[in-house]
Amino acid sequence: MRARFESMIRKAQDDICAAVEAVDGSKFREDTWIRPGGGGGISRVLQDGNVWEKAGVNVSVVYGSMPPEAYRAAIGGASANEEAKNKAGRIPFFAAGVSSVMHPKNPMAPTVHFNYRYFETDSPQDVEGAPRAWWFGGGTDLTPSYLFEEDVKHFHQVQKQACDKHDPEFYPKFKKWCDDYFLIKHRGERRGLGGIFFDDLNDRDPEKILTFSTECVNSVIPAYIPLVEKRKDMTFTEKQKAWQQLRRGRYVEFNLVYDRGTTFGLKTGGRIESILMSLPLTARWEYDHTPEEGSEEWKLLNACRSPVEWAALEL
Amino acid sequence: MRARFESMIRKAQDDICAAVEAVDGSKFREDTWIRPGGGGGISRVLQDGNVWEKAGVNVSVVYGSMPPEAYRAAIGGASANEEAKNKAGRIPFFAAGVSSVMHPKNPMAPTVHFNYRYFETDSPQDVEGAPRAWWFGGGTDLTPSYLFEEDVKHFHQVQKQACDKHDPEFYPKFKKWCDDYFLIKHRGERRGLGGIFFDDLNDRDPEKILTFSTECVNSVIPAYIPLVEKRKDMTFTEKQKAWQQLRRGRYVEFNLVYDRGTTFGLKTGGRIESILMSLPLTARWEYDHTPEEGSEEWKLLNACRSPVEWAALEL
Repeated sequence: MRARFESMIRKAQDDICAAVEAVDGSKFREDTWIRPGGGGGISRVLQDGNVWEKAGVNVSVVYGSMPPEAYRAAIGGASANEEAKNKAGRIPFFAAGVSSVMHPKNPMAPTVHFNYRYFETDSPQDVEGAPRAWWFGGGTDLTPSYLFEEDVKHFHQVQKQACDKHDPEFYPKFKKWCDDYFLIKHRGERRGLGGIFFDDLNDRDPEKILTFSTECVNSVIPAYIPLVEKRKDMTFTEKQKAWQQLRRGRYVEFNLVYDRGTTFGLKTGGRIESILMSLPLTARWEYDHTPEEGSEEWKLLNACRSPVEWAALEL
Repeated sequence: MRARFESMIRKAQDDICAAVEAVDGSKFREDTWIRPGGGGGISRVLQDGNVWEKAGVNVSVVYGSMPPEAYRAAIGGASANEEAKNKAGRIPFFAAGVSSVMHPKNPMAPTVHFNYRYFETDSPQDVEGAPRAWWFGGGTDLTPSYLFEEDVKHFHQVQKQACDKHDPEFYPKFKKWCDDYFLIKHRGERRGLGGIFFDDLNDRDPEKILTFSTECVNSVIPAYIPLVEKRKDMTFTEKQKAWQQLRRGRYVEFNLVYDRGTTFGLKTGGRIESILMSLPLTARWEYDHTPEEGSEEWKLLNACRSPVEWAALEL
C-alpha cells in the first residue's frame, strides 16, 4: 500500500502540474528535499505566473518516529485507544500525501485546495495492547472571492459523481465534514464554499479506499480548471482586488490556527516552505470590514456562513 | 488594584494615541464594545494614515468565567497548582490590559508592539485547596524590517532605564524572556529584535508591580516615536517594500500560531476585531525566499536569528 499510494500521488502531481502549466503558460519550479528524520518530498511551485499568483503541488513521503503531542495532533479524532493517545512515548509512523493550493490572480477566479494522504503508525512500544493504526484522509475544496453559483454547483457535482461511484453515503457525509472542518471558529464563517473532506477512513478494505482516493484526485482537474478558464480574463476593480485580499487573510487565519495538516507539519519539523506553500502570496487585514448588505461581497460571505447544498441547487 | 490598573491603562491609551496622531496627522477611530460574558473595551484604530498603515491601541477589562482550556492557556507557565490546572471546571476571572501594535508604511520605520495586563482568577470551585491567583504581565518589543543599529540600541536603552529603576535584575531577565517568547519556532527566527517581556509576575507587593508596569507603559513613546520620526520619510524601493511585506507575513505567523494573548482571546470569545487588530494591513508569503548573504535583508534576518545585547552595543 505504501508504494502504490506513493506512485498514485506522484502521477497526480505530474498530471495536475501539466494541466495548470497549460492554462498559465509558465512552468512550475521543482525542489526535492529530504527530511532529516526520514523520507522527503517533491515541492513544485509556480509563483507570479500569468493566471496564478501562487500554485503549489507538494508530494511527501515521510517516516520516522514522532513525539506524543504530534501523534495526538495527527490522530485527532481517530478512534484509537484513549490510553494509547495519552500515555504513548515516541511512535513510529509513515505518512504519504499530495497537497496543493492554487491562488489565481483574478479575484473572479477561485482558489482550490486538495490533499490526499495515507497514514500508518506502529503500536506505541510502551503501551501494552495499543494497536497499529492506518487510515486515509483527504478532500478537495473551493474558495472563491466572488460567488458564481453555476461554478460552485459544477465543482460540487464533479465531487459528488466521484463519491457516488464508491458509496452513496460518501458525498453527503464528506460534504458536511468539509463544511464543518473549514470553519474559522472565531469568525463563525467558513474559509470557502466547501467540497469534500474525510479523515480517519479505515472502515473497509484499504484497496477500496485507495481506488476511491485515486478517483478523488483525478476529479480535481475537471472540477476546477474549467472555472479558472471561464473567469481568468474577467475585468475587475481595485475594490474587488482588495476584497480578494481580505478573503486571503481569512485563508491564512484558517491555515495557521486550525488546519490539522499545518499544525502537524509545524510540530513534526517538516519542511517549512512546503508546509506554508499553501499561504497566499499576498493577504490583507482591514479593521472591522463589513460588506454592505446585498452586495456581491456580502453574498459570498453569507454563503461562507450558511452552507448550501450546491450539487442539488436549481439554477 | 482592579480600578487603579484600569485607570492607568486608559490614561496610557489616551497619551499614546495623542502622540501617534501628532506624528501621523490623522485621527484614531474609536469603538467601544461589550463582552456578552462580562466587561468590554475600547478599541482605537488608525488605518491607512499618513505614516502608519495600521495602528491600534486597545483597552479591555473583562471578567466572567472561563472554560478550563482557556484557563490553562491563560495560566500557561504560572506556578499554579498542577492539580488545579488539570481538574478545574469553569473558573471566575478578571483580566484588564492595554495592547497595541503599530505598523508604519515606510519599510525603514519599525513596527512596535506593547501589552500590559493584570489578571486574577478565583479559586476553582471544584478543586479543594487550589488558591486564588493574580499576576501581571507585559512587554514592549520592536520589529524593524531594516536594521539601524542605533535605533535598536536607543529602544533597548529606554526599556533598560525603565527596568533598572525598579530592579537591576529585570532588564536582563525580561530582555531574554522577550527573545525567547517571540521565537517563531518553526523558522528558528524571532519576529523582531526584542525588547522586554514578562509574565506571571507576582513575586512582590502588587503596588510595586503596578508602579513598574506604569513606568513601562510610559516608556513606549520615548522609546519608539523618535525612531519613526527619523525614518518615516526615507526613500525606498519596491524590493524593500516587498521585504517589509514578507516580514509582516512572519508577524502574522507568530501571532496566529504562538501568541498567548491571541490564543487566549480566540478561545474565550473576545472581540475578534480587537484581538486581530494586531495583524498588519497587508502581508506576503513568497515561496522559499532567501536573502543574499551580506545584504541588508540578511543582516536583519541574522539579528532575528541570533539575539544581540543591544543596550550595551558599542557603535
